[in-house]
Formats: sequence, C-alpha cells, structure tokens
Amino acid sequence: MGFARADAVAADAADPLRELRERFHLPEGVVYLDGNSLGVLPKATAERQHALVTDEWGESLVRSWNAHDWIGAPQRIGAKIARLIGAKAHEVIVADSTSVNLFKLLVAAARVSDRPTLLSEAGNFHTDLHIASGVAELMGLSLELAPRSEVEARIGGDTNLLLLTHVHYKTAERFDMAAVTRRAAEAGALTVWDLSHSVGAVPLQLNEAGAELAVGCGYKYLNGGPGAPAFLYVAEHLQERLVSPLRGWMGHSKPFDFTDDYVPARGIDRFLAGTPPMLSLIALESGVDAFEGVSMERLWTKSVALFDAFHGLVEERCPGLPCISPLRPDQRGSHISYRHPNAFELCQALIADGVIGDFRAPDVVRFGLTPLYLGFEDLWLGVDRLARILGDESWRDPRFAARGKVT
Amino acid sequence: MGFARADAVAADAADPLRELRERFHLPEGVVYLDGNSLGVLPKATAERQHALVTDEWGESLVRSWNAHDWIGAPQRIGAKIARLIGAKAHEVIVADSTSVNLFKLLVAAARVSDRPTLLSEAGNFHTDLHIASGVAELMGLSLELAPRSEVEARIGGDTNLLLLTHVHYKTAERFDMAAVTRRAAEAGALTVWDLSHSVGAVPLQLNEAGAELAVGCGYKYLNGGPGAPAFLYVAEHLQERLVSPLRGWMGHSKPFDFTDDYVPARGIDRFLAGTPPMLSLIALESGVDAFEGVSMERLWTKSVALFDAFHGLVEERCPGLPCISPLRPDQRGSHISYRHPNAFELCQALIADGVIGDFRAPDVVRFGLTPLYLGFEDLWLGVDRLARILGDESWRDPRFAARGKVT
Repeated sequence: MGFARADAVAADAADPLRELRERFHLPEGVVYLDGNSLGVLPKATAERQHALVTDEWGESLVRSWNAHDWIGAPQRIGAKIARLIGAKAHEVIVADSTSVNLFKLLVAAARVSDRPTLLSEAGNFHTDLHIASGVAELMGLSLELAPRSEVEARIGGDTNLLLLTHVHYKTAERFDMAAVTRRAAEAGALTVWDLSHSVGAVPLQLNEAGAELAVGCGYKYLNGGPGAPAFLYVAEHLQERLVSPLRGWMGHSKPFDFTDDYVPARGIDRFLAGTPPMLSLIALESGVDAFEGVSMERLWTKSVALFDAFHGLVEERCPGLPCISPLRPDQRGSHISYRHPNAFELCQALIADGVIGDFRAPDVVRFGLTPLYLGFEDLWLGVDRLARILGDESWRDPRFAARGKVT
Repeated sequence: MGFARADAVAADAADPLRELRERFHLPEGVVYLDGNSLGVLPKATAERQHALVTDEWGESLVRSWNAHDWIGAPQRIGAKIARLIGAKAHEVIVADSTSVNLFKLLVAAARVSDRPTLLSEAGNFHTDLHIASGVAELMGLSLELAPRSEVEARIGGDTNLLLLTHVHYKTAERFDMAAVTRRAAEAGALTVWDLSHSVGAVPLQLNEAGAELAVGCGYKYLNGGPGAPAFLYVAEHLQERLVSPLRGWMGHSKPFDFTDDYVPARGIDRFLAGTPPMLSLIALESGVDAFEGVSMERLWTKSVALFDAFHGLVEERCPGLPCISPLRPDQRGSHISYRHPNAFELCQALIADGVIGDFRAPDVVRFGLTPLYLGFEDLWLGVDRLARILGDESWRDPRFAARGKVT
C-alpha cells in the first residue's frame, strides 16, 4: 500500500493536475492538510484585492457599485459556484454566512408546510444544529436528532424539513444525496443540504440529484479567504414559493426605490439581505476562479488517489491508528480522520512540526486532502512526521496543550 | 453667509483637524460628498489588507485565528466602536450586516414582551422597515408606521418595540435619543436605534441616553470599506435576558466543543452567528482606527462649521434650491439634502463633473459633509459646480439619466 518518498515524487511528476498547484501560494516548510478548514491563498487573490482596495474603493469609491459591478457580484459569483455543483446559474447566490443562509432557507421552507418536525443528524456540524434549534423554537417546530444510521428511517409524515450535511465535517462520511432527497420527497418533506465539506471537493450534481435547497461555505475548498461569504441554492421550481425571513434591501424587487413596503425580488435574488462585505466577497470570486478549466470529476479522481496514498502510508507507518473515514470513495468526502485519545496534543505537536491538520473534539485529528494544490510528496512528508511524532512520547508534554485552541 | 474660495482656503488652514485629512486617500479631481454612503479609503487600510492577505492568510493560514487574533476581532473592533458611541467595551460587537443585526435584536427583544405592536417611522430607511416587516410576520406582531411627527404620540401600552433611525438617511433629521428612549421606557417598550447615519458623525452617548439596543453601519462614516460588517449594541443589563434567533457557532458558550446543544455565550458574544468575513472585518478596524486621537465632539464642531458653510454657499449661489435638512445642529446629522424635481439627473450631472453626492428617490440630492477628511475648499468647489450646473440646462439631457443607478 505505502510508498517511498521517491514514489511520491514520481506520482507528482505524473499528475496531470500538478500545474494547478502553481495557482496557489503554499508557505515554505509547511505541509498544509487543513484546506477543508481554511483554503490556501490563490496567487491571483492578492493582486485582485490590491486593485479592489486601492483602485475600485480608493479611486472610484461609490461609483464602483456600477463601474466595477459590485452590485452584480452575489449573482455573478453564485453562477460560477453553480457550475461546480451541477446547478443552474440563477439557482445560486452568494450572501452572508453559512449559518445565516441556513436560517433563511429553514425558515422559508418550514413555512410552506404545517408539519411539526425538523429532522437532522445527531453530531451534525454544530452550527447547523444550533441554527436549527433557533428556527425550531421560533417556528414552533420540534427538532429531532437521529443517529446517522437511523436518519432515513425517521423520515415520516410528521417531517417538515430534513437538514443534513452532505459530507460529515468530522468523519468525512457522505450521504447519497439523490437517494435521501428522494426518500424525503416521497414522504412529503423538503431537504436542506449543507455542502460546506463537499463543494470544490467532491463532484456534485444538485439538479440531477433533485436537490431542493442547499447552503455551503466559501472559505474551505473554495479558497475564498477567512470567513468568506457563503452561498445558497434554491431549485428553480421553489424560488417563487419561498420568501426569506431576512428581508434586507438587497433582496427587494426595487432596492433603489426606497419604498416602505417589502416586495421580494424575483428568483434567487430575494435571498439577499444587507449590503455584502465586498472585500471578502471579491476574494471568494478569486478563489472560485482558481477552479477555471478543471472539472470536479478530474479533481475527485485525484482526491481518491490522495486518500488512498495517505491511508496506505498511515497503515504502514502508523499501525494501530484507527481511521474513522469511509474507505469507499462514493461514501466520503476529501478529508480523512483518525481517532486518538490525545488528539488535541497530537494535533498541536504536528503543527509545531509544520504539519497542519486539525483537532475536532473530543478525540479526532483530521487531515484535508485538497486535490487542487496538494501533491503526493506533501502527504508523504505529513505521514512521515506523524509517524515520528507517534513514536516519540515527548509530544504529550502539557506545553502543547497550552497552545491556541482554534485549529 | 457665503464666502469666496480664498476664505475657504483660509478656513482650511485654520482648521485644527486639517491634519486628519492626511490619514485618507482622496482621489485627485474629485469632490467627494458621499462619505455617508461609502467612506473613503484610509491610507493605513491598503497596507493592513496586504499584510492580512499575504502574511496572515497566505503564510500563517488557519493558525492566524490565534496568532493574529482573528478570533477576537469582533469584540476588539466592537470595543473601539464603543468609544465612539459612549458605550462600554463589552456592549458592542461587530458581526454580519446592519440588516441581519437588526433582525437579531428585534426578534430577541420582541420575545421578552407579549405586546402586539412593532412601531416605526414611515419613510424610515427601507431595509429597516423590510426587516421589521419580516420580524412582525414571524412573531405575529403588527408593524405600525407613523409619520415622524406622530411617532412619539403613538407609543402606548400596545407597543412592544420601537424601531427608529437616529439620523434620517434622507433628510438628516435627528431624534432626541434620550427623550424618545425615556418616553418608550415609561410606556414599557424597548427602543432599537439604527445609528448608521450617526456613528462617526455626531456625538453619541448611548449609556447616558439610556439606550438599550442599537445597530449601525461600518462602511459610511466609519470608513470600513464597501459592505463592511456592521455592529450591534446591547446594554449590559439586557444582555443575559436576550437570546439571538440566529444561533451560529460563534455565539455559543463553547464553540470548539462541537456539542449538539446550544448554550448561548455570556454577554454580547451571544449575538455572533457564523464565521465573520475577516478581510472586510479587518478593513473596518483600520477605518475605526482612523478616529484615533480625535474626539467626536471636536469632529462635530467641524461638521457644524462645514454644514453652515455649505448651506450658506448654496443659499448664495443656488437661490431657490430648498434645503430639507434641519438647520439647528442638535436636530440633525452630518449630511445636507435638497429637493429638486430632477434630482436624479442633477446628481448624475454633478458626478460627471467630479462632484459625488447621491440621489435618493424620488426627488432628493444628498451631500455628506464628513468632518474627518473634508475641508471648506472642497465644499466651495462642490457648490461652485452645483451652481454652474443649475444655471445650465444641458444637464437635463437624457444621456445623464441613462447612467448607472447605484449612487
């Protein structure tokens, strides 16, 4: 299974996607296995941001809303993301954060039915569950959390909405979007998908899968920068039936008429709220543009090869470290996770050694295998250091535990 | 009343705040009277953004959440804004947009009472009214809009919440915050203030005025950049009684424990939702830092002098142009507005001539008189061109009307 460093170098040389790496800035001496938490900096971003700040803002000022089409950015970037997720251009828009977008869709969708239950997975990404609990309280719904293996069976006549994360943030387990959406639809429930750990990593065909509603993150695999705005997807046939509870002026049919009455814009635009944070928004555009010319299918093929290489190397070099991610490619995303009783300290020791993965409470260390810019030698170096750390007990030193907590 | 260009130059030379202008980039050949729509670029911002993008994101990557205290930015910047508005450091936080923050506060506050009415002003900034109508629908409240002169009289035993904009976006009329808040409190209602056209322009003493809840914009007088994140204020005594309906992970008491159950953070932190857009957030910090070393009282003194100079010049040079802003300083903000039947075309003609103000439907042209960086000669030049345009009918040419609409 495993291979030597020379094999890794050869695999990189033979990688048809290797040149994509040149689009990104990768810090010297760092093995960055955390692109599923914060994607790296695309080289084009720094220059674009400089022009945005000094020319568009600094020189053109408020005129840039038209002159540089700031006003059209949410739709323009949404259309670019649509291509990555198998959606129509006018079904995706960029706005706010994943949390806020989730709130909009859950409230809007919950109102089209009088069923009492909002169903999700226990252990789903916590912000999804917190937002859902806020929505449930506000709308008088009951939030029901089922273990992953029981979610589908719990869908029933009482289910108003099903909220699931497509690729699990911790284990990388992936739901069968088409099958689950169909199962919910047959029971008369809408499904909201969180694509945060899927978009830019695994091939998505939202239209083909019959997906109705989705949100996703801009700062992970899309490389949009820290806290980049998020996107939301509403299938065409639902757009006129749903109204956002967050009625900001950007979602008004005539935002520049300054009328007292709210009239939602037609289509996806109605899910805009306030003025978008333009510096972060345009950085996201640079991130999405870095996918130019490469299909998600080719990226996924590389992701699978990276996963197999990493998994094989860990099996060989770190025997006994239990992998909690599915080995079947169609059942997972693009990260790999391991359980370890001292996962936090292990993660800190790795970071101190230049290998950046992250810790997820209480006992998981997680490595993002981002196919756009990672190579096989990166993985070899990462596992080499992991093996050396695991073979040396000094990393359990409490000084590692004293380091920062956001990883 | 009016004065010659030489007088304006002399007034600038004598202005004790003149050196503040050096903190900002003002485009050559432009008279920018729109800082109340989009503030200009502070010189420090471009350098800070470059370091943020290339070093903090590019090099340190996810480690910057701790290493560069990204995680503490919402509170840190909130504390800096608190100094500008007479609030305690832990009463202000930066997050999301003004619209989204308004939603959080309105829903959270409406739930502590069972009274049926959400009262606001007809003609209030439209996003405030749209957000309020969404909240009213969600919470089963009745949204009542009263003419400005009748708002106070309408406060009664049915009033759950009063939502007002402190300085009116169109006319610059200013409410007496202390008096109105007291009047509402005596009637048992909470007041939510929108400070978007006040913060960084007029002296605010939220604590002294007994203000309970407020939101405000980061991209106008705070010079935070296009679509900069907004802030919200919750008076200390209310913080533990209110829970945000937008329960994102950043507002959780232990965001890194990844628990299914939502436990709101103590204090103002509970009003955070998702991950903040860091590039836009840090740009806002540079904007707020540009107020370093100058009191709002001194800025206001200059704002009053700018207003008087502009108003006098227009009276002299553009007789018959009706000013719709209050002439008494304690009754207004830092912009001045005029009514004109062809306000849109007039505004476009001014922009074409390098004088940037803005049009507000249906018949208002508005000029922001930002004391941090504008001088008396700027105003002289602006009025000089305004007078020439008004004296020359060619600007009514339809080609001006064909230009962009976002001003």
